[in-house]
Amino acid sequence: MVDVSALIDSLPGPMVITDPSILSGYRQDRAADPNAGQPIALVRPLTTEDVQTAVRWCAASGVPLVTRGAGTSLSGGATAVDGAVMITTEKMRGIVVDTTTRTAVCRPGMLNVEVKAAAAAHGLWYPPDPSSFEICTIGGNAATNAGGLCCVKYGVTVDYVLGLEVVLADGRAVRLGGKQLKDSAGLSLTRLFVGSEGLLGIITEVTVRLLPPQAPACTVVGVFPSVTDASRAVLAVTGQTRPAMLEFMDNTSINAVEDMLNMGLHRDAGAMLIAQSDAPGPAGTVEIALIEEAFLAHGASEVFTTDDPDEGEAFTVARRAAIPAVERRGSLLLEDVGVPLPALPALVEGVARIAEANDVVIAVIAHAGDGNTHPLIVFDPNDDAETRRAQIAFDEVMGLAVAMGGTITGEHGVGRLKKGWLPAQLGADVMDLTATIKKALDPQGLLNPGVML
Amino acid sequence: MVDVSALIDSLPGPMVITDPSILSGYRQDRAADPNAGQPIALVRPLTTEDVQTAVRWCAASGVPLVTRGAGTSLSGGATAVDGAVMITTEKMRGIVVDTTTRTAVCRPGMLNVEVKAAAAAHGLWYPPDPSSFEICTIGGNAATNAGGLCCVKYGVTVDYVLGLEVVLADGRAVRLGGKQLKDSAGLSLTRLFVGSEGLLGIITEVTVRLLPPQAPACTVVGVFPSVTDASRAVLAVTGQTRPAMLEFMDNTSINAVEDMLNMGLHRDAGAMLIAQSDAPGPAGTVEIALIEEAFLAHGASEVFTTDDPDEGEAFTVARRAAIPAVERRGSLLLEDVGVPLPALPALVEGVARIAEANDVVIAVIAHAGDGNTHPLIVFDPNDDAETRRAQIAFDEVMGLAVAMGGTITGEHGVGRLKKGWLPAQLGADVMDLTATIKKALDPQGLLNPGVML
Repeated sequence: MVDVSALIDSLPGPMVITDPSILSGYRQDRAADPNAGQPIALVRPLTTEDVQTAVRWCAASGVPLVTRGAGTSLSGGATAVDGAVMITTEKMRGIVVDTTTRTAVCRPGMLNVEVKAAAAAHGLWYPPDPSSFEICTIGGNAATNAGGLCCVKYGVTVDYVLGLEVVLADGRAVRLGGKQLKDSAGLSLTRLFVGSEGLLGIITEVTVRLLPPQAPACTVVGVFPSVTDASRAVLAVTGQTRPAMLEFMDNTSINAVEDMLNMGLHRDAGAMLIAQSDAPGPAGTVEIALIEEAFLAHGASEVFTTDDPDEGEAFTVARRAAIPAVERRGSLLLEDVGVPLPALPALVEGVARIAEANDVVIAVIAHAGDGNTHPLIVFDPNDDAETRRAQIAFDEVMGLAVAMGGTITGEHGVGRLKKGWLPAQLGADVMDLTATIKKALDPQGLLNPGVML
Repeated sequence: MVDVSALIDSLPGPMVITDPSILSGYRQDRAADPNAGQPIALVRPLTTEDVQTAVRWCAASGVPLVTRGAGTSLSGGATAVDGAVMITTEKMRGIVVDTTTRTAVCRPGMLNVEVKAAAAAHGLWYPPDPSSFEICTIGGNAATNAGGLCCVKYGVTVDYVLGLEVVLADGRAVRLGGKQLKDSAGLSLTRLFVGSEGLLGIITEVTVRLLPPQAPACTVVGVFPSVTDASRAVLAVTGQTRPAMLEFMDNTSINAVEDMLNMGLHRDAGAMLIAQSDAPGPAGTVEIALIEEAFLAHGASEVFTTDDPDEGEAFTVARRAAIPAVERRGSLLLEDVGVPLPALPALVEGVARIAEANDVVIAVIAHAGDGNTHPLIVFDPNDDAETRRAQIAFDEVMGLAVAMGGTITGEHGVGRLKKGWLPAQLGADVMDLTATIKKALDPQGLLNPGVML
């Protein structure tokens, strides 16, 4: 057992915690890995210098280090490792919005919703909106290159990160990028660190680009007889226009949400699409008409359009509620597979076949407009046979996506749960390239070991 | 002297050229470095396999390798090195547009204008528009993360690159990313290679994201008494809205363009701004009014607005003509400095002071909306004293930008001409990080040596 007293001595007050009852609350993330390890200490730094102190102690002691924001990873990216120090950025708080450069400099522990609110207070908008936006941190968003519902038009986290402060594996803190909208000086290190899942360094500050506020959106909801019809309607929409949102729910997820929210969704629908247009004026009218026509041309039994923001938001809330709603039916294995859009109908059909073949329930929700789906595999953890079948289905869904030229993870990251499938997607040479960069930047392999590689 | 006969034997036909009269045409790029080296051979590959063959021969022989697209680098990024093999991607041609995924898979030798045209033929739009768009290649655009005029609203090349094929320093070819709009599987290697200026590998294919066509733009031209007034007007615009273009020309560049094009520009103006709005309908009307008011509130003596595309394009052509127009007055040292927007007025004022103090003419044009300026230092290469003063001014302008928290290069890249100033901007630790990644991916240091590091 490593002696952590020097670490405790080097960081003031209650910043280093070894109380097992507190540590236990930081072992798992939202992926709830039952095999999460037992850390030796939790560090709650306030400043970049505190992070550097902890990293230097770990480097000198050969102790692994796992960083977490709010622990909302669905891939086990923030799961504890035996003998590791956990660093939580939850106390690294603060944000400064600059309206002239339309940027915000954020400490990593700020919640996504707080970044949005701070921007909105200055009449600006921070677009990325993971479904967990009310409880996930901007530091975690940057570390995982988080996505969300608006990505189909507005891109993912990396599209908004202009600058970072990062503590490297040896404890040095570096500033990458800044408030300039354009900067070609040197390698694109800022973008390399975004989405690096804690493997290359610890993000201690994030400078994000902000946009003018989004125009009021108009919402179109389509009810379809089957997932195939709905996913073909998706292609018809994206082939003609770029909606601000294009979300998908299948029959299982519709019913799970209806059980929870009781809002009058069509329980007999094969699938539902929720689209939004925020194009202003006549362009919005044209876009809404295009979406309505695409829905009707692909078998929609009902198309409902509203420009009432609250009514539109109710459907977005329904979509966001899908994961907790389906979770009430059992434990979940949560997929995040994506495919190039033309393969979307074949992917959702393939998932249905995998569910049937393995006799498990798979609810499918999707950020359909960018081909990113979340098949939710439901199982009873007390039923060993079903748990095994769920695991087989989990594998088969990822295999299907890879076979279609897609990705095992569109937005949640690889973490610990999906790393077994990464070589199948990337191939040996890209895995080797990844390992080469990891080794160059973290020769001891102490940063978030067990993730990705 | 290395014997290139094995290289010649391994690549068919006239793919390897050693004729000095042909080689001489590939020694320099648009930066016209008089100290360009003497290559031993030029390779004109047709396929990725040809590139691999050349790279493997160089790796085995310890011969440096410089890749060039069309050779339009303004930073000496494609300048020949003594004893190097030059690879030109000019014969690697072809593009496939996929309307459903709104992507285009491009061979690296396609010109930017050809990518735009292929997209437009399918009703789509490839936004990045370096001023050299008619003569620069998409491969070079990706290797340098090229910018342009529309970046202020639509971002730079990296914002459009979804996937790459890259030949690594050891000759392996890897595919990174793909047609998925969202992909979090593994490190962000695609984005690391974009803007890596040939240091990490050779880009042999680029998959770019396309957008729906741009709406017709309305153009507002403002004539200002001074560069200070004009740059303050820029801040007033960007603080309120995000125009599709916001370009700046000072008195010297206005007069140089007027000498060349004779289009009736105001020769006595201190500066001119050219803004465009492509917001449709009433939103566009509001944005145009905002821009007009911002111009008038900051001293514009004349504001001219047109929704005639040809008339608007004439001003864009004038702005694009500035570099060749100023070049008629002498040789140029071409700056590419950028600052966070609030520092723009101080930057343009500082450049004027540097010009006066060193008794040289510096014409200033700028992608003002994103704080990226191009001071053009004019000198007579036959006048040794003036050449020295120009070089001092070149240094001082970069020093000024760095002191303001800005960048030595907003879009042209570091190349060979600006690498001396890179440490001042990035600092020793980030330079070390850059060198670590370079060494990990190219241990022999054969790829584009002398650039950046």
